[in-house]
Amino acid sequence: MLQFSKAVSSLRTSEIRDLMGLAINPDIISFAGGMPGNELFPVKEIDEIYNNLPLDIKQTGFQYGPTPGYEPLLESLNEYLKKKGLPVEKNRLLITTGSLQAINIIGKIFIDPDETIVTENPCFVGAISAFKSYQANLKGINLDEEGINLDLLDNYLNHSKSISPKFLYLTPNFHNPAGTLYTEKRKKELVPILQKHDLLLIEDDAYGELYFNEGAHKRIVPMKALYGDETPICYLGSFSKILGPGFRLGWMLAPPEIYQKAELVKQSLDACSPNFTQILANEFLRSGMLEKYVGKLRVIYKRRKETMAAAIRKYFPEEITWIEPEGGFYIWLKIPPKLDLTSILKAGIAKGAVFVVGKAFDPDGIDNSHFRLSYSHTPEDKIEKGIRILGETIKEALKG
Amino acid sequence: MLQFSKAVSSLRTSEIRDLMGLAINPDIISFAGGMPGNELFPVKEIDEIYNNLPLDIKQTGFQYGPTPGYEPLLESLNEYLKKKGLPVEKNRLLITTGSLQAINIIGKIFIDPDETIVTENPCFVGAISAFKSYQANLKGINLDEEGINLDLLDNYLNHSKSISPKFLYLTPNFHNPAGTLYTEKRKKELVPILQKHDLLLIEDDAYGELYFNEGAHKRIVPMKALYGDETPICYLGSFSKILGPGFRLGWMLAPPEIYQKAELVKQSLDACSPNFTQILANEFLRSGMLEKYVGKLRVIYKRRKETMAAAIRKYFPEEITWIEPEGGFYIWLKIPPKLDLTSILKAGIAKGAVFVVGKAFDPDGIDNSHFRLSYSHTPEDKIEKGIRILGETIKEALKG
Repeated sequence: MLQFSKAVSSLRTSEIRDLMGLAINPDIISFAGGMPGNELFPVKEIDEIYNNLPLDIKQTGFQYGPTPGYEPLLESLNEYLKKKGLPVEKNRLLITTGSLQAINIIGKIFIDPDETIVTENPCFVGAISAFKSYQANLKGINLDEEGINLDLLDNYLNHSKSISPKFLYLTPNFHNPAGTLYTEKRKKELVPILQKHDLLLIEDDAYGELYFNEGAHKRIVPMKALYGDETPICYLGSFSKILGPGFRLGWMLAPPEIYQKAELVKQSLDACSPNFTQILANEFLRSGMLEKYVGKLRVIYKRRKETMAAAIRKYFPEEITWIEPEGGFYIWLKIPPKLDLTSILKAGIAKGAVFVVGKAFDPDGIDNSHFRLSYSHTPEDKIEKGIRILGETIKEALKG
Repeated sequence: MLQFSKAVSSLRTSEIRDLMGLAINPDIISFAGGMPGNELFPVKEIDEIYNNLPLDIKQTGFQYGPTPGYEPLLESLNEYLKKKGLPVEKNRLLITTGSLQAINIIGKIFIDPDETIVTENPCFVGAISAFKSYQANLKGINLDEEGINLDLLDNYLNHSKSISPKFLYLTPNFHNPAGTLYTEKRKKELVPILQKHDLLLIEDDAYGELYFNEGAHKRIVPMKALYGDETPICYLGSFSKILGPGFRLGWMLAPPEIYQKAELVKQSLDACSPNFTQILANEFLRSGMLEKYVGKLRVIYKRRKETMAAAIRKYFPEEITWIEPEGGFYIWLKIPPKLDLTSILKAGIAKGAVFVVGKAFDPDGIDNSHFRLSYSHTPEDKIEKGIRILGETIKEALKG
């Protein structure tokens, strides 16, 4: 008889996955998955890079690589992060198979069963599932429009000294699902709280490059760039949104003593990340193609966001409240208490449009007062049509 | 102050990694790392495949894929495994980033801290490190020339009923490091022991395709193909030795109830394996290029093995005993008790040749009576020279 571990018993199929499946049905307009549109990938650029690789570099792409990452990629990524103000000299960089693997490595380094970690509420669903797989207790602290609520956070930490949470996990730039971009003030005021409670910060920055205006551009400076000397911070990033998730490449920039453990965990998990895609990502970054490409993405995602925002204003009842994002992939909307989101989801799917219900992003899996719309992978004409369908669905539910 | 988890405290830098580093030094002839030679990779074939991919398939390569794997690869891999006699209908297939990730998934599914698992002794070093990272107690059972010693295994299991080990991890085909190919008799007699003790078998088959003669070819039939209906078996495989480790692709064929947990763990670990390399591996497999390529590899590795075996006979003293392998990457050699392997390693490196000491493969990290030579990534002229250097080093050590 098979006896499974306690760790695996804490994992459940997330609703997101089922909804991502629906996205494959071409008759349903999907605002569910958090991925780029297939038509946006830089295929031509990668073709050019691949066909210009010398034989010995191609051969290296077939081989095992060093655990920390393919050396030239580590160099060019260090250069790239340095330009963004990150303290690359005092820290070390590890290439991972996406930032989700980096989150897992952090989990494995720090979490013993039943220990507590602090996240935002809502929180990236991948992080919730990863942390739970290390049997962590998750404490979600509410987000407001400027970032994590510091009164709630400080109050919780003051009253949980005996628990001694292992770290705080935040995504300050264009939060998934909330779309929030932290204010400078909020980031600044977080630092003394981290110091006071001796709390490590895990900063996940998968979306920072996808800003829609200059005001937002100025505000995407990572906490690690601003305050990395004052308080320990692990900074996570990803190629998934600025090249392609199919490459499975992300990174972690960490203080040396954390890096050292992270490298050991990475080695025991899968030895190294794929050299084949690391070589392509390196040339894409080093040649300057990445910056040009991301510039193009900003224009396209901004247009998609504007189309979705205009359609929401046109078709959604005013009982649905939301804040227009200044970057990233998502709009996060609040429904009035009398509505039942699960029924709306079902009715929406029957009519041909789908989204993700909010409780997927609640560390406790309960709060269903919001839903997430993703505009990243849907062309503009379909956005308008899908939002009209959802608007009608919600209006009918309101009539009850 | 940072407080690390108990899991990460059990991980140490393995000696192998440092030795792999030495392999990069072109002045030292390395028999250390267990990788293919760079000059052997099917670069031309993959070039042809890449440049013939239609645009929509290339775009799919940039995108997230389903957690179980890229659908067409799952189909062609199922076909491939079916031809090898594996019961693909009654089991399910999961693509992983190398078989090391599959080993981790098994660890996460089954191991709670301080539980026991049984391995061969010696054992694949990646598996040792992965299992330890889940805080398992490892019990290694000695290998003899026909496979794991069944008397020792049965005896141990009879006396450890209160411990109730979670599974047995074996590599029956061209063992790493021992080179052993299990006899049919040994595999057959293992089954009633597994049944009697209700013990799950994890069968790792990374090297089976690399046989050197027809007798060996007949004996590589997986335990899961022969006895999968009689006793639960998870079968692990890899593209690392038959295409390239840089693709980071392996697989697990598991009974449905184990598969279901494995998919959840895979999703929480890194969402999916790289679509980009899965698409290339699929075409390589589907087109028949893989079988042709592996045929070529068998000839080359056999020649390298013969060169190494001849050089050992010529240059090594007869106090060094070993069995000539019939496939795979490795020769495993025993030294007389009076010799100190660490000194020989140091002297060998000083003279220009390197290998891996046996204690790296001992689950307890103690027994240093053997060493591993890999012939897979060294051209024949260098093999002869490197073995001559090691022969001289050992003879000098014997003189004392």
